[in-house]
Amino acid sequence: MGLTEIRNICEVSLDIPAERQPKLHNRWHPDIPSAGSIKNGETVKIECVDWTGGQIGNNDSADDMKNVDLTRIHYLSGPFEVETAEPGDVLLVEIMDVQPHQQHPWGLSVLVRFGGIIEVLGGVFDKNNGGGFLDEIYPTAAKAIWDFEGIYCTSRHIPHVKFAGLIHPGILGCAPSAEVLATWNKREGELIAANKLDRIVAQPPEPENVHAGSAAEDIKEKVGKEGARTIPGRPEHGGNCDIKNLSRGSKVFLPVHVKGAKFSVGDLHFSQGDGEISFCGAIEMSGVVTINFKVMKNGMADLGMKSPIYLPGPVEPHYGPGRYLTFEGFSVDEHGKQHYMDVTVAYRQTILRCIEYLRRFGYSDYQVYLLLSCAPVQGHVAGIVDIPNACTTLGLPMDIFDFDISPTGKATKLDMGNCAYESGVTEGKVTSGGANSEHSWGGGLTFKEKTVVNNVKEKVLSS
Amino acid sequence: MGLTEIRNICEVSLDIPAERQPKLHNRWHPDIPSAGSIKNGETVKIECVDWTGGQIGNNDSADDMKNVDLTRIHYLSGPFEVETAEPGDVLLVEIMDVQPHQQHPWGLSVLVRFGGIIEVLGGVFDKNNGGGFLDEIYPTAAKAIWDFEGIYCTSRHIPHVKFAGLIHPGILGCAPSAEVLATWNKREGELIAANKLDRIVAQPPEPENVHAGSAAEDIKEKVGKEGARTIPGRPEHGGNCDIKNLSRGSKVFLPVHVKGAKFSVGDLHFSQGDGEISFCGAIEMSGVVTINFKVMKNGMADLGMKSPIYLPGPVEPHYGPGRYLTFEGFSVDEHGKQHYMDVTVAYRQTILRCIEYLRRFGYSDYQVYLLLSCAPVQGHVAGIVDIPNACTTLGLPMDIFDFDISPTGKATKLDMGNCAYESGVTEGKVTSGGANSEHSWGGGLTFKEKTVVNNVKEKVLSS
Amino acid sequence: MGLTEIRNICEVSLDIPAERQPKLHNRWHPDIPSAGSIKNGETVKIECVDWTGGQIGNNDSADDMKNVDLTRIHYLSGPFEVETAEPGDVLLVEIMDVQPHQQHPWGLSVLVRFGGIIEVLGGVFDKNNGGGFLDEIYPTAAKAIWDFEGIYCTSRHIPHVKFAGLIHPGILGCAPSAEVLATWNKREGELIAANKLDRIVAQPPEPENVHAGSAAEDIKEKVGKEGARTIPGRPEHGGNCDIKNLSRGSKVFLPVHVKGAKFSVGDLHFSQGDGEISFCGAIEMSGVVTINFKVMKNGMADLGMKSPIYLPGPVEPHYGPGRYLTFEGFSVDEHGKQHYMDVTVAYRQTILRCIEYLRRFGYSDYQVYLLLSCAPVQGHVAGIVDIPNACTTLGLPMDIFDFDISPTGKATKLDMGNCAYESGVTEGKVTSGGANSEHSWGGGLTFKEKTVVNNVKEKVLSS
Amino acid sequence: MGLTEIRNICEVSLDIPAERQPKLHNRWHPDIPSAGSIKNGETVKIECVDWTGGQIGNNDSADDMKNVDLTRIHYLSGPFEVETAEPGDVLLVEIMDVQPHQQHPWGLSVLVRFGGIIEVLGGVFDKNNGGGFLDEIYPTAAKAIWDFEGIYCTSRHIPHVKFAGLIHPGILGCAPSAEVLATWNKREGELIAANKLDRIVAQPPEPENVHAGSAAEDIKEKVGKEGARTIPGRPEHGGNCDIKNLSRGSKVFLPVHVKGAKFSVGDLHFSQGDGEISFCGAIEMSGVVTINFKVMKNGMADLGMKSPIYLPGPVEPHYGPGRYLTFEGFSVDEHGKQHYMDVTVAYRQTILRCIEYLRRFGYSDYQVYLLLSCAPVQGHVAGIVDIPNACTTLGLPMDIFDFDISPTGKATKLDMGNCAYESGVTEGKVTSGGANSEHSWGGGLTFKEKTVVNNVKEKVLSS
Repeated sequence: MGLTEIRNICEVSLDIPAERQPKLHNRWHPDIPSAGSIKNGETVKIECVDWTGGQIGNNDSADDMKNVDLTRIHYLSGPFEVETAEPGDVLLVEIMDVQPHQQHPWGLSVLVRFGGIIEVLGGVFDKNNGGGFLDEIYPTAAKAIWDFEGIYCTSRHIPHVKFAGLIHPGILGCAPSAEVLATWNKREGELIAANKLDRIVAQPPEPENVHAGSAAEDIKEKVGKEGARTIPGRPEHGGNCDIKNLSRGSKVFLPVHVKGAKFSVGDLHFSQGDGEISFCGAIEMSGVVTINFKVMKNGMADLGMKSPIYLPGPVEPHYGPGRYLTFEGFSVDEHGKQHYMDVTVAYRQTILRCIEYLRRFGYSDYQVYLLLSCAPVQGHVAGIVDIPNACTTLGLPMDIFDFDISPTGKATKLDMGNCAYESGVTEGKVTSGGANSEHSWGGGLTFKEKTVVNNVKEKVLSS
Repeated sequence: MGLTEIRNICEVSLDIPAERQPKLHNRWHPDIPSAGSIKNGETVKIECVDWTGGQIGNNDSADDMKNVDLTRIHYLSGPFEVETAEPGDVLLVEIMDVQPHQQHPWGLSVLVRFGGIIEVLGGVFDKNNGGGFLDEIYPTAAKAIWDFEGIYCTSRHIPHVKFAGLIHPGILGCAPSAEVLATWNKREGELIAANKLDRIVAQPPEPENVHAGSAAEDIKEKVGKEGARTIPGRPEHGGNCDIKNLSRGSKVFLPVHVKGAKFSVGDLHFSQGDGEISFCGAIEMSGVVTINFKVMKNGMADLGMKSPIYLPGPVEPHYGPGRYLTFEGFSVDEHGKQHYMDVTVAYRQTILRCIEYLRRFGYSDYQVYLLLSCAPVQGHVAGIVDIPNACTTLGLPMDIFDFDISPTGKATKLDMGNCAYESGVTEGKVTSGGANSEHSWGGGLTFKEKTVVNNVKEKVLSS
Repeated sequence: MGLTEIRNICEVSLDIPAERQPKLHNRWHPDIPSAGSIKNGETVKIECVDWTGGQIGNNDSADDMKNVDLTRIHYLSGPFEVETAEPGDVLLVEIMDVQPHQQHPWGLSVLVRFGGIIEVLGGVFDKNNGGGFLDEIYPTAAKAIWDFEGIYCTSRHIPHVKFAGLIHPGILGCAPSAEVLATWNKREGELIAANKLDRIVAQPPEPENVHAGSAAEDIKEKVGKEGARTIPGRPEHGGNCDIKNLSRGSKVFLPVHVKGAKFSVGDLHFSQGDGEISFCGAIEMSGVVTINFKVMKNGMADLGMKSPIYLPGPVEPHYGPGRYLTFEGFSVDEHGKQHYMDVTVAYRQTILRCIEYLRRFGYSDYQVYLLLSCAPVQGHVAGIVDIPNACTTLGLPMDIFDFDISPTGKATKLDMGNCAYESGVTEGKVTSGGANSEHSWGGGLTFKEKTVVNNVKEKVLSS
Repeated sequence: MGLTEIRNICEVSLDIPAERQPKLHNRWHPDIPSAGSIKNGETVKIECVDWTGGQIGNNDSADDMKNVDLTRIHYLSGPFEVETAEPGDVLLVEIMDVQPHQQHPWGLSVLVRFGGIIEVLGGVFDKNNGGGFLDEIYPTAAKAIWDFEGIYCTSRHIPHVKFAGLIHPGILGCAPSAEVLATWNKREGELIAANKLDRIVAQPPEPENVHAGSAAEDIKEKVGKEGARTIPGRPEHGGNCDIKNLSRGSKVFLPVHVKGAKFSVGDLHFSQGDGEISFCGAIEMSGVVTINFKVMKNGMADLGMKSPIYLPGPVEPHYGPGRYLTFEGFSVDEHGKQHYMDVTVAYRQTILRCIEYLRRFGYSDYQVYLLLSCAPVQGHVAGIVDIPNACTTLGLPMDIFDFDISPTGKATKLDMGNCAYESGVTEGKVTSGGANSEHSWGGGLTFKEKTVVNNVKEKVLSS
């Protein structure tokens, strides 16, 4: 009589190290054993740890960010087999809800229940790992802790802001087939081989710290050698797409490449802005996602589908179009150099225009950089055919501030405190290095000199 | 007693060639004489011709597209001087309305009153002029004519679609100062000089067909030598920004670089999609824009503003988030090549995913390409920090179709007719060249061989 | 080749008295001759005069309101015959656009082009004609003139307010059959016969000033004797429904009762609030409506339809839910009396709560009363089952004010000037009679004593 | 370091009878002892039982509805004292979240975790208690059970429907002062005394089954004699306002009448339509509400406030205006009788129009009646000045159905099963009595004859 309780198919512990929990894994590979089975049509709950498996704490230093081990992340829940799913089908994944962890009888700190973490990984870390969007300008590691109260979040590190989370999983997708996986490794390997940039351009398979769920040693070794890393999203299955609107109520249509689909999910975000412009800049959290699964037989051919598609849900925060203060940016970089139809450059400039605007109210540049990574800002491609300038826009909802930011004239600076930095960086030093300095096109940007001993980086480079 | 009639400060004729009308011009230069004066606080009407000054007709051939002379475009209305505006101020431009031409006692054809023009310039034209976003895949010139009925438009060339226009000027901005203009020419000249691509990357100043409004010959010659072309938008003043949401009710904040601001406007669009992905792919029209002007003294410094910002109006068409079928794209190109964090590549892939999807209903690829250029599609930057894949999304409002396009299974093909092509291109040829062929990553794309004698191209190349 | 110009099937003159124009009429009757024929599927333009046929002027006195002759109104355009329409069909009316008159080569005053009229008819007039919703509290005639600038309107009589019009026809519908008309007259006649209220409760047929279009004298006489007045909307055909959301882009499904449907339209509103709480309180204007007509054969039975239904268009102004300051009201009247489940009383109280709130900023009560009649306020039925109190809400969009009206504490009064009153009423007198006095539940409301000689009233009463 | 866990100030048990839990109460009275204290500025969690305290079960019979004891309801959580609040202040209540109960280690049935209850109380019960809006037409008791899956709900009793809940408390407010309470009792007592209707028009104080929280016997007795019932909302404090948009993220401004405010909350609804047209027709549930409290000193005078006001939150479900199929209704009742400006009659007719429309798809009238009570339908006051007809509209979001309900022609009936009825009522009997019969204006409505022995009714009447 009536619906029975929704089945929780993945209880996770926030006390036990993620690498010891058999329903988690941190690579994409078809051979990672199933962590459970789901009926076609069933709704289940799936708990997720935060992306780092708890490497970062609710404190006022960004040092833990510097030591994050990228070979460990992201810990995903799964893979789960969906009955009847076959290669060529489409898995219709309806996200019925996403919630932060409310109950954890396992004794974790307050952070997990009511705090999320947002951070910018600056300096060598970012630059080499391909991270932050503005890492050359803002090289210092910084973070902000966000407190959740119901649908809203606030941060002691970025005052006078409160917004409703557009809560979503940053990563979801089905396992690649062996063929798809081979394509990925070849494709990204060629990019790495051809790389002449002074930065890491992709993350190849990495046996160290591989977690293949409940796999036996031989499988685990195979996964380590071949398994795709979780950092980029990929067209064939979606994965780490970081789409802020894949939130409560969305229906996502995912290509199925292996029998049973082998669906994984993780990297929950309480909120994120378009672009998630700082590396792991969304508000990262552990939590639970409730999903309904349906199999569309032969869906890939029937829908003409190569990459995931989705329909957003009806409960996105909405503010009315006239409440979005919107910034324009073009593909002329901060040194005054003209780029050819480069949307990436244009979007970076758009972000800088917003930083310059909000700086007037007393925020440090790092605070704004962090804020734009996680607040529900709208980043649009505006014009991409008028050579040589691509144009993008950034819509900032004015209603997330508790004071008036509308463009009515000179701004009054408020006491905005500051975000958390890595140790050894005083506010003054950050300021001279980027945070509060004036950037002008072609102007004399002086980047902060910083020598960082960073184990993570070295470890990654040696692989 | 009451408001007097809103002053029309720019009557244009659709019968007299644009180059002979003194309130039009087609270059950006501080010395182009004022076409009229506006009071601080005043609302005025400004009529505009379509971007080509009438070079393209309401017919079923795209040949007129091939012969469009890019040295002539865009014909802008202005420049208008706003009283009290000085360099460093901000000009607050409130777009009270944009309307297609309703009355023209000058006897123009039906096209002007109820038809707009959308076109893709393909082949050599596009490829060399930096035009269409997908020109390598869809090289044939094509166009669609749209009929306006009130707020809605439909096209005999793309059936089963009707949508409300998000009507806006594609170009608006204040004149550059001599210094700003010099920066532009230097910046874009360096790009041209360094160019190794097999395509034109920017449009340098071009004396041929320059129109400097009411300027005397010596000024006209100067404008021809120095005047910036209208094709790209530029960060210092906005200009050709092609932002679809700069529609009715928007407040745009424009930097002022010269005394009197010298505001120009033109390139009216009945509707446009994010990116305006085919060159002049918006629904181009002549019409009238009603604008209120206010001067914010010292606004650039007070607002910390380098590029225009704006607040959209309250009457944008809205469909509810759940009515946007949304496609994902990543920076892996159609040949299977991995690019590094390239949003442009990602957005192109996103568009292709949508073309593949809609193709199932019987549309040709060209029809969809044209449609996505002008329908109110939402192009978002989703994720740009997960190396090496940028991710973008394209939201397609399902409610603009009069049949159900939701992803429920195999599609039924309808008779969709076709859009207008250049002569010599039969539908079959187009098909073999791109329109209906299956593109696959790394697959054997066979591009259409086409030798075009194209005066426009040669003229531009020789400059 | 392409759409021909949209046919204008009803040119009206703003110089010739409405009663002499054969395409206008002011009663509902099946025998009023057709004013033109429309093809099934056709889109046409229909010009409309304002509801009074020009009885009210753009001035600063409300005296013209007092002398409005209700036997003349509303002048509707039509009736138009739609080919193939038969009784039992549904006429699908798609409102492609509504615009104020832009061109009138007939020499009318500025009012028509850029001004609309909103008025409250107070005192005896209202009370007896069943007009204003709050006429017992605000008995004085008042009006405000609104100026249109594109999509926006402002008023010299209600400063610090600007909003986008949700433009729509207040009246549209198909002619009644003889049977339907007889039902109306019987039904409303019984109400009049049973009336014990000290006010007029319905408007019976009235031969005086009847306008039956191009009808011959005998038909005109018949229409005068039987024809239904235009003041109420009626369930069988809609008519004077005053639904603010029947705006641009709406699809209205109308029951057809006579051959050819005989569609009429008029009473154009630039904007209206839910309830149109003062009699003719919307912003009344002359203008032109563009409509597409389609016949759904047997639609009434197929849709199970007795009264019109509609689908709104996609371009309604929207502000985001959080921008609506919302007032609650219950069915306890301003004298403290408890009514039983009376939504009308509850809505009146809700309006009063809003008046009291806005009064704090310096507005007179009459200004707010006028404003709530025409601004896009949302009036909802909240709860109607908890005896004895019905509860309603009124959502006021805060973004229509150019100052902050949010509930943050004590208000600062601004200089708000005043609206136009009938002569003999000084501001002070109005103030003491209602405008600025404190109304409290059960408190000592002292209504203004006013003896009005009002021809309209006497004329109506004697019928 | 970071926010500490949000304090739960009201744990309730779903196993212990509500009347034995000291933090619950079921009357409004200033002397009910405080159930806890809240700091000015604090956010707390408050658990609530469902409105009946568990009298109704998750089953397929409506018999439990018949035996609901109205002297017991509603069980509210509180009253809570907010520090520093004084009479004349305003309590700013920000609803941070509302959630159904997720964890209940107390062993309650599945109903509580994943099921809500919606019911119509028909027959004598409704008619006498002033309940259902359409009780004369639909006199049979019926109910539907809704299952919650994340933000969505579905019902086995009303198939092919799924919607996101606009979750909210139906009741919230501060305690009345002795003076306010006296006003209520006098006001409602006069209504009861003057009543000539054949139904109960208000609920006077009732000692039987009074629950005064932790009050001593003498206080409890006093509360029984004087305490206001919870059924109507009242203008002075809000209370049982049943406003569907008072949902997540709303800020409600409540008048304070006693020291400490003494705030109570309850009657949680997973979803409700405008009007909550059947008595307790919202989806009733137990759950937990998270609220932030702030005191605005002297707020009532500063805001000119007599009744609560509020600002909705940003996450309401939204579908786009064009997705609301909208019905019109006028104040002519189903017998063809003309009423004078009666919004209640008009809204009832609007509901009937929608029932007639949806009936075509196979739903029974009772199913639609239930559905419209709880789905997020928009009920607007459209026109209330055109004598004698008030006009209202009902907007039905088409996207809550999994089939197309748009008005495109004849409908196909689906197998819709049925809702739960009281025992002794077979589907056939209901059908003949109302559910599927055709109601026409003035037509031969034959109401179901039903003799009900109803203890609740008798008990209430004898008081």
